[in-house]
Amino acid sequence: MHRAIATVCLSGTLEDKLNAAAAAGFNGVEIFENDFIAAPWSAERVRRHCAGLGLSIDLYQPFRDFEGAEPDSMRRNLRRAERKFELMERLGVDTILVCSSVAPDTVDDDDLAAEQLHTLAEHAARRGMRIAYEALAWGRFVNTWEHSWDIVRRGDHPALGLCVDSFHVLSRADNGNGKTDPAGIATVPGEKLFFLQLADAPRLDMDVLQWSRHHRLFPGQGSFDLATFTTAVLATGYRGPLSLEVFNDVFRQSAPDRAAVDAMRSLIALEEALGRQPEVRQRERIELARPAPAPELSGFAFTELAVDADSGPRLARALAAMGFAHIGEHRSKPVQLWQLGDARILLNSGGEQATAVSAIAVETADPAASARRAEALLAPALPRARGPAEADLTAVAAPDGTEIFFCRTGAEGTGWLSDFILTGTASDAPTAVTHIDHVALAQPFDYFDEATLFYRAVLGLDPRHDSEFAAPFGLVRGRAVTEPAGRVRIALHGTVLRRGDWAPGVPDPQHLAMATGDIFASARAMRARGAPLLSIPDNYYDDLGARLELDPEVLAAMRECQVLYDRDGVGEYYHFHTEVFGDRIFLEIVQRAGGYSGYGAVNAPVRMTAHRAVRSPTGEASRRLPSEGQAP
Amino acid sequence: MHRAIATVCLSGTLEDKLNAAAAAGFNGVEIFENDFIAAPWSAERVRRHCAGLGLSIDLYQPFRDFEGAEPDSMRRNLRRAERKFELMERLGVDTILVCSSVAPDTVDDDDLAAEQLHTLAEHAARRGMRIAYEALAWGRFVNTWEHSWDIVRRGDHPALGLCVDSFHVLSRADNGNGKTDPAGIATVPGEKLFFLQLADAPRLDMDVLQWSRHHRLFPGQGSFDLATFTTAVLATGYRGPLSLEVFNDVFRQSAPDRAAVDAMRSLIALEEALGRQPEVRQRERIELARPAPAPELSGFAFTELAVDADSGPRLARALAAMGFAHIGEHRSKPVQLWQLGDARILLNSGGEQATAVSAIAVETADPAASARRAEALLAPALPRARGPAEADLTAVAAPDGTEIFFCRTGAEGTGWLSDFILTGTASDAPTAVTHIDHVALAQPFDYFDEATLFYRAVLGLDPRHDSEFAAPFGLVRGRAVTEPAGRVRIALHGTVLRRGDWAPGVPDPQHLAMATGDIFASARAMRARGAPLLSIPDNYYDDLGARLELDPEVLAAMRECQVLYDRDGVGEYYHFHTEVFGDRIFLEIVQRAGGYSGYGAVNAPVRMTAHRAVRSPTGEASRRLPSEGQAP
Repeated sequence: MHRAIATVCLSGTLEDKLNAAAAAGFNGVEIFENDFIAAPWSAERVRRHCAGLGLSIDLYQPFRDFEGAEPDSMRRNLRRAERKFELMERLGVDTILVCSSVAPDTVDDDDLAAEQLHTLAEHAARRGMRIAYEALAWGRFVNTWEHSWDIVRRGDHPALGLCVDSFHVLSRADNGNGKTDPAGIATVPGEKLFFLQLADAPRLDMDVLQWSRHHRLFPGQGSFDLATFTTAVLATGYRGPLSLEVFNDVFRQSAPDRAAVDAMRSLIALEEALGRQPEVRQRERIELARPAPAPELSGFAFTELAVDADSGPRLARALAAMGFAHIGEHRSKPVQLWQLGDARILLNSGGEQATAVSAIAVETADPAASARRAEALLAPALPRARGPAEADLTAVAAPDGTEIFFCRTGAEGTGWLSDFILTGTASDAPTAVTHIDHVALAQPFDYFDEATLFYRAVLGLDPRHDSEFAAPFGLVRGRAVTEPAGRVRIALHGTVLRRGDWAPGVPDPQHLAMATGDIFASARAMRARGAPLLSIPDNYYDDLGARLELDPEVLAAMRECQVLYDRDGVGEYYHFHTEVFGDRIFLEIVQRAGGYSGYGAVNAPVRMTAHRAVRSPTGEASRRLPSEGQAP
Repeated sequence: MHRAIATVCLSGTLEDKLNAAAAAGFNGVEIFENDFIAAPWSAERVRRHCAGLGLSIDLYQPFRDFEGAEPDSMRRNLRRAERKFELMERLGVDTILVCSSVAPDTVDDDDLAAEQLHTLAEHAARRGMRIAYEALAWGRFVNTWEHSWDIVRRGDHPALGLCVDSFHVLSRADNGNGKTDPAGIATVPGEKLFFLQLADAPRLDMDVLQWSRHHRLFPGQGSFDLATFTTAVLATGYRGPLSLEVFNDVFRQSAPDRAAVDAMRSLIALEEALGRQPEVRQRERIELARPAPAPELSGFAFTELAVDADSGPRLARALAAMGFAHIGEHRSKPVQLWQLGDARILLNSGGEQATAVSAIAVETADPAASARRAEALLAPALPRARGPAEADLTAVAAPDGTEIFFCRTGAEGTGWLSDFILTGTASDAPTAVTHIDHVALAQPFDYFDEATLFYRAVLGLDPRHDSEFAAPFGLVRGRAVTEPAGRVRIALHGTVLRRGDWAPGVPDPQHLAMATGDIFASARAMRARGAPLLSIPDNYYDDLGARLELDPEVLAAMRECQVLYDRDGVGEYYHFHTEVFGDRIFLEIVQRAGGYSGYGAVNAPVRMTAHRAVRSPTGEASRRLPSEGQAP
């Protein structure tokens, strides 16, 4: 389909926005009036620039407070419209968005509104232009698509049609602010549907205008069902642009080239979802993006940690104390392979990077298909330096820069393991660890929503477990993306507000969590082997005992083993942590019981404070458990 | 009065919070349970630490979901309470906050709630403790202070009383969510009012729980009338702590020592406001802070710009082109004095600072009283290097680091002008400029609300003209603080979200605006003299012509002179700008007509884009007006 984006979605000058849209592969743009007004370029130059970039100008917007006006206002409104039509001629755009009036002096008279829009359409038609009338969710009188359609019908002019915007429609359907039926859009004749604007949004209980102006998202980043909505629109016969109109405070200040790619990815994923709708599949002549389906993911092949001269040996000692065996060395790079159960960790001391999770490798049923899909969804491919006899690992960059590898560990010949000279074998899991449960990645402030869409679209993971909690140094937002069966879990977290210089612990820690079948056995064994485990304050266990009627023996074991605890309606979560290596890496051991599928977010502030206490010059280190290099 | 602060107001570990509260001069704290649970210190150690800092522990909070419980839950709730009472004994705190239940299984039965709270009070009384029951604005059934008071009355136990929190009371009074009458609190017997929590907030149309958890402010930073509220509380005979409980996403991640000073300033200012309430003044035995009243301010004495080797000469040439005369040199520092009409600008090339507004000097009726007031309100005093025969200028630091001087230009002997050797005289204002209209200061992200309170409390300025607009590189928030007659106006602005590395124009520009009586004469004269004025796109004037039915001659003059325009119900605003000097300084010339008291915020995005176009490598400089060093 024709993919467009409103310039208001992106940051920068009009030139920045147009260039970014074109670079991301958009076919057209909506020119947001304020962007044009502030631009140093004439309409003719904007037109030439767009043409040179291969961008059509699909819409000029918005034209406000037109209909339902008293006669004197109407005269002024028509004069204002004529000026804008002249400008549109110069720009080479034939459709203008007229949004329903919010002016306090608007007259509540549908016949008058219809008549005035008819007049406006008549003026537009003389220049070969069209009026796309849109109900704002907060319009003074017209605030549902049904109402705007009724007025368009009464206005009865070939140059008068409807613009539907998923936010305005679904925000009202969603919050019960007004009776509206998105599915009913399918009954509008296609030739009367002039324009389609798409935006997603998180569910928020707030003033709808503020919700719209600050919190819209690209499709797939929020809670709206845009595939169903768009299917209803396509059922009318509408074949115009799929055009994004997203007002978002973060995107407004993010790098526009990057936001434009994020936006394009959202449309490709939406088109793919449309292709799965039976109503759409039966229709001819709808060109939709059809990326390769996401192959099944069955777990983590490995996780790679970049380490430096200090953290590398410390991490190696910690892994050994946790029961990992150092079983291999990379053929051409300074990379160690450690294994325990099915958990494999690479320690890479070859880069310039500070200690961090540098790569995640997922086990995929079809690495090549995973790579093709990633490419189709605009994931940046990473070049790999490759030695002889080394596997051609395909990797893409996640929004936070983490490398994502697609692997099939068992595959003959091409397996990634053949890159390693095996020098040992994994032990018998003396500490009960079985596999990697999840990887937790701190997201840069600007890319949290981009990351959600990336993992959802590129890897086929589902966003779950949204959380927000008051950490000791500021509010933190969390979200997990998981393979449906929970075999690949990535926990994303980031600050709700970008932090200032004062904040300690920047960059935010990342961690690797390993699953165990017996949390207390793991803790005791690791402690006995000298693992540098994090100690938790007694206050935490006193509160746990006050809040929950736990078995006193279990509570005592938790206190002894410094295990944190959470439960929900379906299960329980036990977890403990190591100290931090380098600036930001720690390890976690978790045990899930019942159907618990969360990440113990409720305990994160306690864990963060405990990490801080260990690292702070004023923190008490006396209660620390025996640490590396010490006998237990 | 006894001034307290809840630990939840501040960022950091419990230790950070306690130390910051004590350093700012608080008498006591509320221990927020989560802060204690995460702390490595035992209750006894926290108690000792507080005692050592001179802090009483006034409240332990919160205890949730107690009343209206089924029998089995009640058994567990009492067990939970006993555990907390034990902890409170160890901490040495005798009052616990019990907030109204939000649990979905709460029973709607006031008699039951009263009976259960009576039982809880009985348990507390055995240990000499008290229950302060508070209605959360979003409580399941109890969500007004009246309802909580009714239950406390029915509960009828000497150890059962009320906690009132200004947010929970005023948020409901303000948004019409429920019938409540803050003034009625005055009828509660003082001995039943166990605790007072204070928070301000901006008016926001959103879910009250989210409003409370993220957007509370210290008194004087928001829209609530806390003086009237607190007066009603004091009328009961309540003489307990004035205790701040503010949940704010920005404060949660700001430096705690600084936030604690901001908090203390808010209480001092509130006490001063209480002292002006007739009902309070008539009462004996209320100790209130009484800082010296703010002396009248009558304008700007001068504004000092820090300049570097490049921007200094450019600014000097620009000032000359704008009609300023270089009339003096500082006796001991590399500071030039420039004057035009009553506008005086110092160019200080002696510091390490990048080009910026470094100081503002206000004309005060009593510099010494202004300084005493600033000190009483915790404004950081700045040491001054002083040469012989130099005036002892008193200066304090504003939250953004700008120095604020208190001056009386006409004063005999001690006037700041005597620090300068006068080498010339001001010209006859050939460019019609009369005085400094306002100074616009970019506020660091974390200190916007602190700045509001600082200027309001320290200088006696009123916050006005809140604005929020989509600038080309992100959302910007604005607020002015002004002397009632408009003789001192400071326009504060800052980004709504802290910007990332991508954003251009960081640090955000500041500017100095000079008033003229004839905007077009000023523009033409300055242009003729070669001032480096900023050019505005034609698109802006085309839109102005479309939107407003302006006199074509006036519109033509605006276009010719690159003057921007705004109007409101009472007046008009004309303004034009210079280019940027150094990284962040520009000058503005403004003309106000009628009662217009704003700052043309509607035009800021256009101005910002124009500045960007001049500075950007891809921007068009061809339409720039004749610049410095060029003949017109």
